[in-house]
Amino acid sequence: MKYTPSLDQLIQALQALPGVGPRSAQRMAFTLLEQKRDQANILAQAMTQALTQIGHCSLCRNFSEGDSLCPTCRSDKRRNSGLLCIVESPADVVAIEQTGQYSGLYFVLMGRLSPLDGIGPEDIGLDLLEQRLQQESINELILATNPTVEGEATAYYIADLAKQHTIKVSRIAHGVPIGGELDHVDGTTLSHSFVGRQAF
Amino acid sequence: MKYTPSLDQLIQALQALPGVGPRSAQRMAFTLLEQKRDQANILAQAMTQALTQIGHCSLCRNFSEGDSLCPTCRSDKRRNSGLLCIVESPADVVAIEQTGQYSGLYFVLMGRLSPLDGIGPEDIGLDLLEQRLQQESINELILATNPTVEGEATAYYIADLAKQHTIKVSRIAHGVPIGGELDHVDGTTLSHSFVGRQAF
Repeated sequence: MKYTPSLDQLIQALQALPGVGPRSAQRMAFTLLEQKRDQANILAQAMTQALTQIGHCSLCRNFSEGDSLCPTCRSDKRRNSGLLCIVESPADVVAIEQTGQYSGLYFVLMGRLSPLDGIGPEDIGLDLLEQRLQQESINELILATNPTVEGEATAYYIADLAKQHTIKVSRIAHGVPIGGELDHVDGTTLSHSFVGRQAF
Repeated sequence: MKYTPSLDQLIQALQALPGVGPRSAQRMAFTLLEQKRDQANILAQAMTQALTQIGHCSLCRNFSEGDSLCPTCRSDKRRNSGLLCIVESPADVVAIEQTGQYSGLYFVLMGRLSPLDGIGPEDIGLDLLEQRLQQESINELILATNPTVEGEATAYYIADLAKQHTIKVSRIAHGVPIGGELDHVDGTTLSHSFVGRQAF
């Protein structure tokens, strides 16, 4: 046997982390046990605590702790903005918040429509979204799903939903990234940047 | 605030893992919380268990569980081989065991001599090693420390120790790796491969 039982279990379990294969898992386990036992203890506790404490906001479905509403959904300023941005994952919220540009509400799908994987409208909370569209006074729905086939399909589906409730819908711009060079950008992106051109 | 408190603690704690920075830690935390809660629970438990169960073998200093001696040190076949291989870390033992070439005992330094970092002979268990050289019947000491400045210094120090006890000492070969090409190998390695050439 290559490892002792507990070590073997730890190395197996570490491979649940994204991007961690057998070799990195072994390296992680050895580093934790050789040099970082205190930090490993803290990590194990932090993980247990996060799993018990962190649930989902009942309004936007983002991660939330303690209360049923997350701080973003509780903010009056954001509620009054009348803006609702649809994203696929909590990481997208973090990315958008870091720009400091947006101060509206979010709705986190926690996925995307994917009929092949059996992920339908309810699985990404679109029933909840439809309720919100009915009950809240939303001026504009901003679709910020990823520019993938599934993300686009999800955007179209939600746009349809919004139009039924006569709410204005927009899609974030896709085009050449700032600092990027034209001849390094793929053709589809470049096409998008032409279609989406704006008056200068 | 970017994250909820528990999430923030988890993301901080994950950065104790080698090669994990803020971005990967965020990705790991989100993946665990979004899609892999069961596996995260298993990971937290495996970590706690490994930390409480895994200690060091009293003879070879490698990781050991339960008994004070690891299975390798308990094996009669290995004890009778008269071979003792010195390595820097448990990962080195795993790598050597995977070759299937070696069937002797190990001594794991859990580090290397490094006066600048305040790591002296006792810190890497050389007092324990000297005891073993006195008490056990060892025919050959194989030095398999890393070919770095500190690894070499450690090897020289241990070779000296072995000579005091008139025990045969060898160093694993350094040279062009199998499958490597001469013009891609650095000069120092190539020099080593010439110095260490063997009759064909």
